[in-house]
Amino acid sequence: MRVHIVGSGLIGTSIGMALAVAGDLVSFSDLSDSRAELAKGLTQNVDLATGERCDLLIAAVPSGSVPEVIIDAFRKDLASNFTDTASIKAKCVDDIESFAPDLARRYCGSHPIAGREVSGPESAQADLFNGRPWVITPTGATELAAITAVRHVLRTAGAVEIEMTPPDHDQAVALISHAPQVVASLMAGELTRHATKAAELSGQGLRDVTRIAASDSRLWREILSANRSALLPILASLQQRLGEVITGLSAPEGDAGILDFLEDGRRGRDLIPGKHGTKRAYVILSVLIADAPGQLKSLFNDAGDANINIEDVTMEHSPGHPTGLVQISVAPEQASALEQYLRGRGWHLYAPSNDASLR
Amino acid sequence: MRVHIVGSGLIGTSIGMALAVAGDLVSFSDLSDSRAELAKGLTQNVDLATGERCDLLIAAVPSGSVPEVIIDAFRKDLASNFTDTASIKAKCVDDIESFAPDLARRYCGSHPIAGREVSGPESAQADLFNGRPWVITPTGATELAAITAVRHVLRTAGAVEIEMTPPDHDQAVALISHAPQVVASLMAGELTRHATKAAELSGQGLRDVTRIAASDSRLWREILSANRSALLPILASLQQRLGEVITGLSAPEGDAGILDFLEDGRRGRDLIPGKHGTKRAYVILSVLIADAPGQLKSLFNDAGDANINIEDVTMEHSPGHPTGLVQISVAPEQASALEQYLRGRGWHLYAPSNDASLR
Repeated sequence: MRVHIVGSGLIGTSIGMALAVAGDLVSFSDLSDSRAELAKGLTQNVDLATGERCDLLIAAVPSGSVPEVIIDAFRKDLASNFTDTASIKAKCVDDIESFAPDLARRYCGSHPIAGREVSGPESAQADLFNGRPWVITPTGATELAAITAVRHVLRTAGAVEIEMTPPDHDQAVALISHAPQVVASLMAGELTRHATKAAELSGQGLRDVTRIAASDSRLWREILSANRSALLPILASLQQRLGEVITGLSAPEGDAGILDFLEDGRRGRDLIPGKHGTKRAYVILSVLIADAPGQLKSLFNDAGDANINIEDVTMEHSPGHPTGLVQISVAPEQASALEQYLRGRGWHLYAPSNDASLR
Repeated sequence: MRVHIVGSGLIGTSIGMALAVAGDLVSFSDLSDSRAELAKGLTQNVDLATGERCDLLIAAVPSGSVPEVIIDAFRKDLASNFTDTASIKAKCVDDIESFAPDLARRYCGSHPIAGREVSGPESAQADLFNGRPWVITPTGATELAAITAVRHVLRTAGAVEIEMTPPDHDQAVALISHAPQVVASLMAGELTRHATKAAELSGQGLRDVTRIAASDSRLWREILSANRSALLPILASLQQRLGEVITGLSAPEGDAGILDFLEDGRRGRDLIPGKHGTKRAYVILSVLIADAPGQLKSLFNDAGDANINIEDVTMEHSPGHPTGLVQISVAPEQASALEQYLRGRGWHLYAPSNDASLR
């Protein structure tokens, strides 16, 4: 397949690398010549001749620029089919489809969900989308050829195809990405309004809840604003439910509806897929390690010798003290074997648990 | 020192073990004889003779039972000084101090912050409090002897002493523990109100924000209700600020005040101490690993050979795919050496970043 990618940032370049590795012909253009050159240098295949009509044009540019890029390429007849990688879809798809019926037939929107905390072609990887969700948003107007072309790309990149309507996609990302960003920033921002001494008592719970509050503010202002029509009803629901919690705690007995609220949270947490799309059902072993080079090496050496697959690993810090707790998640049927093995090697273990809560 | 501990659960037994290891004389009592027996068996020192007056009595019982236990022990003249381990302090301290001026002088409240996701004496560890914060809440009535006795315990356990007034303590835990629990449950519960297909797109951000929503609901109903007077003003502030976000996104331009809101979140995040009480200033290396036993062993083997201290480690799952990303945090000055070393050993690395945001 011959593919032209407009925009050689992290996403566009990574797609190009994956396609080139698989033998497709890839070319790049970018507002920045040096970025496009770097993207070309990173791919391992020959470019298309300039101006040659390609099978698929991918607009890997910021959401706001997608319609302009696609419509311009359609007018110049640069490609048989068109797609994009924008993280917000409804307005983008509407703008493109309403431009011309012929373009609507040959365009299939898509959103590879694999952005990293880094950007630019220098961070690109051919396997960036390996195992990650990749949403496609065909409409009634989209012809099979356009869908097939996009499907070829996402399968080549190793991604998992998920088909959604554009509005469903926007509501989904509002729920699983944009609302959590608001919630994390809300909680983290609250810390600035109180005595800083309180933060000394912080545990892993607060750290986890607020981690993504460290994200880029300008980028997120754009995202939240662009998807506000999908996001606002969710925020309104959060606000109403928070109000119910406040009312419940203010009631004479002090806990009206609180158990239901907390149980709802447990049910919601269960909806989030774990590794391999399955629900979380691991046993967590907590191992105390010293703060010295080689401690993790020794630990995973011993765990590896036990020939047990570790499903997840996190490390908890002890403020003011040179030790840490490593939490290892393993399948329930392997937990006791690993626990005994590690104890036998002299590690300090805390009793296993399948409850994810940590104070 | 001769210490009697009422309540041989995780906290009481762990304290007893730490004291016994250091040579103190420890005895236990519990509503359950079998639990007390297990606690005694786990300590490595002789018990006090029954009824002998001890230097310190620790009420390691649920918050609601603390005043009753302390007052009863005071009436029976069981100890020279008294303390407790309750996670909510103001009401508890008031109840005890108002019982008798002589008790007020001999009582110093405390709160070791090291609960785990497990419970019971069978989960106890002598080093449970090693490096963890331990709040003490003396008042104007508390005499030095009581403070000194509690200080001996927390120092013996290796904990980090933090002195606060009882109301300041309750406000601090409302902010850094109870409000995050509400926020996590709020976000997780929202997932149950929308199409479950959206959850398929979940990334690490949503997982982190909602992790503690899996906590025990009955336990947390009690905690939230018991500390509601400190928690409610914080929830009201969250509600008001969430309302401002909604207003800002609803404004004609769609982003009024949103940048300030997000920047506040970044500043708040910076207030949370990292390892050793310092702020987070690590570089994150992302390494792709296969889902097979021994992969983490190989990785940490190689990292260990590089003789570089790993500050933090987390693993991100790829839904539906048998690979994972391990994120290794290291000091900035060591990042490039470790990166080069791991690349040289054939690992797939993503470019390092010092931004904690992950999409």
